[in-house]
Amino acid sequence: MYKLKCITCGSIYDPEPNMYTCPKCGERYGTLEVIFNYDLINVKKSDFDKHGDISQFSKILPIAEYKVKQVVGNTPTYEFKNYYGIKKVFFKYDGTNPTGSYKDRASAIAISKAYEYGYDTIYCASTGNAASSLAGLSAPTDLKTYIFVPKNIPIAKLAQLHVFGANIILIDGNYDQAFDISTKVGKKLNWYSRNSAINPYLLEGKKTGAMELVVQLDFNVPDIVFVSAGDGTVISSIYKGFYDFYNLNLIQKIPKIIGIQAEGADAIAKTFSYGKPYTPVDIIPNTIADSISVGKPRDVIKACKYVEKSGGTFLTVNDEEIKTAIFELAKNTGIFAEPAGAAAYAGFKKAISMNLLKKEDTVAIFITGNGLKDIKAVQDNIKINPIPPVFEKIIEYINEVRK
Amino acid sequence: MYKLKCITCGSIYDPEPNMYTCPKCGERYGTLEVIFNYDLINVKKSDFDKHGDISQFSKILPIAEYKVKQVVGNTPTYEFKNYYGIKKVFFKYDGTNPTGSYKDRASAIAISKAYEYGYDTIYCASTGNAASSLAGLSAPTDLKTYIFVPKNIPIAKLAQLHVFGANIILIDGNYDQAFDISTKVGKKLNWYSRNSAINPYLLEGKKTGAMELVVQLDFNVPDIVFVSAGDGTVISSIYKGFYDFYNLNLIQKIPKIIGIQAEGADAIAKTFSYGKPYTPVDIIPNTIADSISVGKPRDVIKACKYVEKSGGTFLTVNDEEIKTAIFELAKNTGIFAEPAGAAAYAGFKKAISMNLLKKEDTVAIFITGNGLKDIKAVQDNIKINPIPPVFEKIIEYINEVRK
Repeated sequence: MYKLKCITCGSIYDPEPNMYTCPKCGERYGTLEVIFNYDLINVKKSDFDKHGDISQFSKILPIAEYKVKQVVGNTPTYEFKNYYGIKKVFFKYDGTNPTGSYKDRASAIAISKAYEYGYDTIYCASTGNAASSLAGLSAPTDLKTYIFVPKNIPIAKLAQLHVFGANIILIDGNYDQAFDISTKVGKKLNWYSRNSAINPYLLEGKKTGAMELVVQLDFNVPDIVFVSAGDGTVISSIYKGFYDFYNLNLIQKIPKIIGIQAEGADAIAKTFSYGKPYTPVDIIPNTIADSISVGKPRDVIKACKYVEKSGGTFLTVNDEEIKTAIFELAKNTGIFAEPAGAAAYAGFKKAISMNLLKKEDTVAIFITGNGLKDIKAVQDNIKINPIPPVFEKIIEYINEVRK
Repeated sequence: MYKLKCITCGSIYDPEPNMYTCPKCGERYGTLEVIFNYDLINVKKSDFDKHGDISQFSKILPIAEYKVKQVVGNTPTYEFKNYYGIKKVFFKYDGTNPTGSYKDRASAIAISKAYEYGYDTIYCASTGNAASSLAGLSAPTDLKTYIFVPKNIPIAKLAQLHVFGANIILIDGNYDQAFDISTKVGKKLNWYSRNSAINPYLLEGKKTGAMELVVQLDFNVPDIVFVSAGDGTVISSIYKGFYDFYNLNLIQKIPKIIGIQAEGADAIAKTFSYGKPYTPVDIIPNTIADSISVGKPRDVIKACKYVEKSGGTFLTVNDEEIKTAIFELAKNTGIFAEPAGAAAYAGFKKAISMNLLKKEDTVAIFITGNGLKDIKAVQDNIKINPIPPVFEKIIEYINEVRK
């Protein structure tokens, strides 16, 4: 039903347990796409349920059997009308996933594949969310889990790994170093890889976010989608979700996809801006948005190609804009996002300031992680003095606040 | 369709905006029950949806209109068979609610009532979860929000209040002091109260957890339910959910309800153990489970009466047992619970050790809060040294781990 196709040279391969990237083009240029024979997939709109989890997309997923205990997906979409003058703005909030981030969509597929291929151990390198996701979803399974994380991982995400009982390998280095060494070790020990981009099936899990949005919107497709980008897999997956649905005749268009990167981790935006042929530009990352703090993005080629095909582009936002976005998003919508999630919202605001949006547009913003996963960016702002429980003192304080 | 009835003297009142507790019995003994005329409520099993949010219970809720933007409820229930030798164990996990706890069920009703009664300001005192819940759900509304919290509130919960833009009154004292002073201030300023027990409608919101469980279990009722208790409102609400469904002929029995308290905050368990007439025994609370760290429980009378009616009892667990429970629960089920949530699981294990459960029982355990809300209890345990990203060193480390 599906094959694997190199994003660079176009070679086509049959799926095999050890087939991660194109042997001819290497790990960086040779990431693989899962290509379906759409004629063999028989789905119609009424097969899908607005309240279904991602297992409802199994017919369009490259897995033999969906093998995850927790409910992944079925995350809420909130609509705001005339928001900043834009007709309809939808917030797709993935912070309610089992471990609090979009990455659960990918881990669910990685676990299903590990079982399909008969592996007993699964590993990943991660800035934190993929890690806690893999640890959480594999906890109730009998897979052994090894997680490579950079030592600057936010404490809440480390706590998740710890309680879920994963074997944690804390790397004295950054995400990019953790990634490279994990791949070497994983190959050597014949573990199944849940590494972004290297494993082509992760993107397939992530694409369910776009599909779910479409189902929730009664198969109406927004004009423009905002999503933050680190490694480039999530943003590529959003395109792929719409693309599959388009090819299955379930929708009539693919939205423009706007990728948002942190100014201090703008490797994909740079690569995109230099034009074709896309040649990865690596940087040393520095941003409060840890989930997209990537210097050497693994899915950069795919991200650039897909965003180009969608007619979209990349924008960058600085850390101050991300912090402001966290507060404004929370106050206006009730969604508390982690920095990388709020970055997409900051990008939406930037697009408005650049007059990139039209009044009559419908926009969707993917908020990819729960703010509770990384409170560093907001906790420094909290400066509140305790007040004794004395009536007069409190009334006095309230009168001050009201001024 | 409904009236208010004093839990102690049985006086019946018509609902009014300022009617919080029985004027004759006072705030402690005079908490009110919402009593329905079940003949006027026309519901059948097929009205309910396994994937519905709490608005699906509107016909059995004392509100004119449901007024909340976010999706509250529709939280997952996970089944484990032959768990610790018990036939079926269900975990009802409320950490996926908008602000990560069970309390969102109550805040949704409080906000709906504030609108119904025309208030412009709403307040609460809280150990943290009710606070962040009220702040989060009221964020996208035009209600002003004042939150009284003790200064030992976990930082993540304080961060939530902060980003949601609530007015925070940090009390230099404990929860009980914050509660008492908030009620005085709220009355004086004519704000709507979202204080546990004082406002009888909060329990009605919370009862949806039990109802949702029943719907998800195809109207099969577990034999025994475990839930942690602080103020006593959640546990009372669980009983009320089953009770309403029982009286509406949707279920044929009410389960035994086992309340779990921390050893250091066992005021309700003590009150219950001394027998009738239930006379509140207050204590000075001391437990890592901040959400149930209550010395002067406000719904103690109701909690004792309802648990008694259900044929259940109260058990206590110590902080070590709670910590152990967090890890074991996460590893076995993939659910990362905050300490108060894990306390219910610790209680389940205690009940097993006391031979209170039978092999053929079906058991439901309410996990009332997300572990990301309070990582203090687990982060101290994390002792991992960073390793340089060097192949040999990492292989060496893994060989150590595998031993």
